Amino acid sequence: MRTILLLVTVLLSFLNITAQNQVERWRIYEIVLNGNSKGNPFTDVQLSAKFSNGEQEKMVSGFYDGNGIYKIRFMPQVIGSWTFTTSSNLKSLNNKKGKFVCFSNKVNNHGPVIVKDTLNFSYSDNKPYFPFGTTCYAWVHQGDSLAELTLKTLSNGYFNKMRMCIFPKDYDWNKKEPLLYPFEGKALANWDFSRFNPAYFQNIEKRIAQLDSLGIEADLIVFHPYDRWGFSKMDRMTDDLYINYIISRFAAYKNVWWSMANEYDFMRDKKMEDWNHYIQLFAEKDPYNHLRSIHNGSVMYDQTNPLLTHVSIQNEDTYRAKELRIRYKKPIIYDECRYEGNINWSWGNLTALDMVNKFWRGVTNGGYVGHGETYLTENPIKWGNKSDAEMWWSKGGILRGQSQERIKFLKNILESAPGYLTPVVNYDYWMPYSALAYKDEYFLNYYNMDQPRCQIVNLPKNSKYKAEIINGWDMTITPVEGEFSGKSLIQLPQKPLTAIRFTKIVN
Amino acid sequence: MRTILLLVTVLLSFLNITAQNQVERWRIYEIVLNGNSKGNPFTDVQLSAKFSNGEQEKMVSGFYDGNGIYKIRFMPQVIGSWTFTTSSNLKSLNNKKGKFVCFSNKVNNHGPVIVKDTLNFSYSDNKPYFPFGTTCYAWVHQGDSLAELTLKTLSNGYFNKMRMCIFPKDYDWNKKEPLLYPFEGKALANWDFSRFNPAYFQNIEKRIAQLDSLGIEADLIVFHPYDRWGFSKMDRMTDDLYINYIISRFAAYKNVWWSMANEYDFMRDKKMEDWNHYIQLFAEKDPYNHLRSIHNGSVMYDQTNPLLTHVSIQNEDTYRAKELRIRYKKPIIYDECRYEGNINWSWGNLTALDMVNKFWRGVTNGGYVGHGETYLTENPIKWGNKSDAEMWWSKGGILRGQSQERIKFLKNILESAPGYLTPVVNYDYWMPYSALAYKDEYFLNYYNMDQPRCQIVNLPKNSKYKAEIINGWDMTITPVEGEFSGKSLIQLPQKPLTAIRFTKIVN
Repeated sequence: MRTILLLVTVLLSFLNITAQNQVERWRIYEIVLNGNSKGNPFTDVQLSAKFSNGEQEKMVSGFYDGNGIYKIRFMPQVIGSWTFTTSSNLKSLNNKKGKFVCFSNKVNNHGPVIVKDTLNFSYSDNKPYFPFGTTCYAWVHQGDSLAELTLKTLSNGYFNKMRMCIFPKDYDWNKKEPLLYPFEGKALANWDFSRFNPAYFQNIEKRIAQLDSLGIEADLIVFHPYDRWGFSKMDRMTDDLYINYIISRFAAYKNVWWSMANEYDFMRDKKMEDWNHYIQLFAEKDPYNHLRSIHNGSVMYDQTNPLLTHVSIQNEDTYRAKELRIRYKKPIIYDECRYEGNINWSWGNLTALDMVNKFWRGVTNGGYVGHGETYLTENPIKWGNKSDAEMWWSKGGILRGQSQERIKFLKNILESAPGYLTPVVNYDYWMPYSALAYKDEYFLNYYNMDQPRCQIVNLPKNSKYKAEIINGWDMTITPVEGEFSGKSLIQLPQKPLTAIRFTKIVN
Repeated sequence: MRTILLLVTVLLSFLNITAQNQVERWRIYEIVLNGNSKGNPFTDVQLSAKFSNGEQEKMVSGFYDGNGIYKIRFMPQVIGSWTFTTSSNLKSLNNKKGKFVCFSNKVNNHGPVIVKDTLNFSYSDNKPYFPFGTTCYAWVHQGDSLAELTLKTLSNGYFNKMRMCIFPKDYDWNKKEPLLYPFEGKALANWDFSRFNPAYFQNIEKRIAQLDSLGIEADLIVFHPYDRWGFSKMDRMTDDLYINYIISRFAAYKNVWWSMANEYDFMRDKKMEDWNHYIQLFAEKDPYNHLRSIHNGSVMYDQTNPLLTHVSIQNEDTYRAKELRIRYKKPIIYDECRYEGNINWSWGNLTALDMVNKFWRGVTNGGYVGHGETYLTENPIKWGNKSDAEMWWSKGGILRGQSQERIKFLKNILESAPGYLTPVVNYDYWMPYSALAYKDEYFLNYYNMDQPRCQIVNLPKNSKYKAEIINGWDMTITPVEGEFSGKSLIQLPQKPLTAIRFTKIVN
């Protein structure tokens, strides 16, 4: 095998092209072409490849990766034999052909996340996916040692999605210059927006791949307003060039999601038609139809746009997921419901208890919720907004809070349910409580921050259920003695974050 | 003095009439007339008196108090000499005359509460009144020993308003028969709705007076839906007779407020025009224009009705007081924002922490909030809704919770402010925080359940302020070292229920 691979590589190399002869399903098949760097290879050279397995064809754009090297990345979604032919206006890149075999995905590779049955998500192999995301906006721009620490923290399995910016970030406590810039030119002044810096994007790719190896989706934020370099004010042509470039580079990574913006409405130089255009562009150009969303500051985007695959929201009222899923008929993610932390901004000083409650209320109302953490550790606090501080929400590193373990606990509860759960209609208009059900087999009732000593629950009369009392803060699951059927009185421990789980007893 | 009083009493007695010759301002001047009990004295006899001090006249209705005794009660609002003449279709009650002196109110008598400057309350002597109410719906119907215990609890000064029903209450955990009924006749079947039971109303008067002696306003609930005796289903004529009777009996008590209903919208036998009519009736017939409100279940009453003196709400979002005061241009009281307790109903299982936070958020947004407590103490909880249990919210007795001391703490803070406080416009749309101000002299900023380690506060630049950190749960007021002016960074203890109080330093 090794010999054959070597032989193919050598042969292709002789033909000015390098590519492997096999690839795992949903992994990256990469063609490397040696061209030249005359003129502006980013704008002068058109490059693409047509991939075919005899039944379907995929057109995939290539990109210039510096040093005269061009690449085409393809993520095959179907196993079997594939062939490709390149097209380019640069003769040395044109009409290159090759073939390879796509073999079955291995056990931990479930493929890209897709929308499942309108309101939920699954991986492409049908395994359910319940997003429990976090936010480290600028973690890829902090250098290797902090990024490695971030990955170590993430390896604890708290989260399976990461919101992260492609561009560097300028904001309170985020004032250092990034190590790399996305364009050639001089910082703050003379960017050549027509020339990308491949090293910048290679670094992001490395991080995307590392997230993937931890089972974490990379929710890439394409534009954001926290900017002192001019990347939030580029013209439409530059934006399009940039979008095409990141699609060509990143789309073959199975764990990529596209978030058009963070707080789109805070970007003064963009108009509504710009956002519609970007959404359209991703829908047209991404060969794999990765998930697309747009995140708001204060004014929610028109989430009825059919090209948005799911609803991404900044709002703390996560319990409203139940009404939003009906209104939009899409999965609902409260990507930002405020963060656990202690900073002066109200969006960053939730207690861990509140954060965990927002997760539970969102989830038990049929939505999903995102985490972030903003703890300042200096004592006393100084006039810090202009200085730098290491906070998870922006730079990654370590987590100092208490919500992440509880979020993981809730994630495990959801993942161990017998199937996708559906919100149950409330029994009382006044009751702010929520409940999820799977058919008549499983019920999960949640009682918020309240402290009931008991609850009366209406179970189906024709079946018997075992009951467990769950505490979302203590992370305890305590069986209740007895079997329950019909209208049932359950004793509770009079504690916030209490839930009851009922499971049908099958004889 | 005593001799004169005795002489006058004897003389009037000789004239078939008893009345004192002097009365403290805002206390009750009572005329007692001996008539007879022929026919139906409640409906057959018309009785009123015209009171005059030479400058103003007040027409006041009398009432039949049983045993051939008729009474006219008058609360003089102006000091000096007054005369009266009675009118009646019963000759023995007609054209009785008398005079008396109204002397100044004593130090602890501030008169009835009135609306002050559109959005606030004061006593009639201009002393500010900040309502911090509680709820014991049926405490007057529980007999003396429990009522005395309730009064003992109230004597701790937690509250200065009591929401209480005139009619007895039938509801979960409230199933005992009352000791007295408001009408003559047999319970549940054959009421004579045209004949009141004076002992029933005498008992309520005793409790109103006892509340007054503790500085507590009696927010009397005229109608309510929790009923198995038919008092929620009386016809219009009976309702009017009842309303006239309670006005005649109760209106002279300075601490009386009229709440048309508890959960008016849950009373299926009343129409909107009925409510409008009752409000109108109180506005016309109450000589002292006591405060009038109507409390909702799920659908808020049209609070723009100009005859409603203030907005009484059931809703847990007390922070919305700021917008409601602008909308309705009236004082806002969240009379019911859920209760501290542990029962199965969500309206009765708030933690004390949540209850206290709802008070702080309401108050620092320019509104007022009411308390209630529903702790079941049996262990394990039994199927209790049909049985009786002593819970403060319904029967009074003792308080088992932890919010009342904190509510008193907040009340003290408000009462020690230099004047009526006004909500400050938020500096940031996203900030759910609130702040109150008195001119440029005093600011009270509140940070909800969050845990900021610091806050940046924009104080006026031309003055210096001392700062104190208040914790609404710990009930601590901690001075901050230094003086502050303009944009100021304040270190905070990273705890829920934190407030900062700034007081201008006057040199």
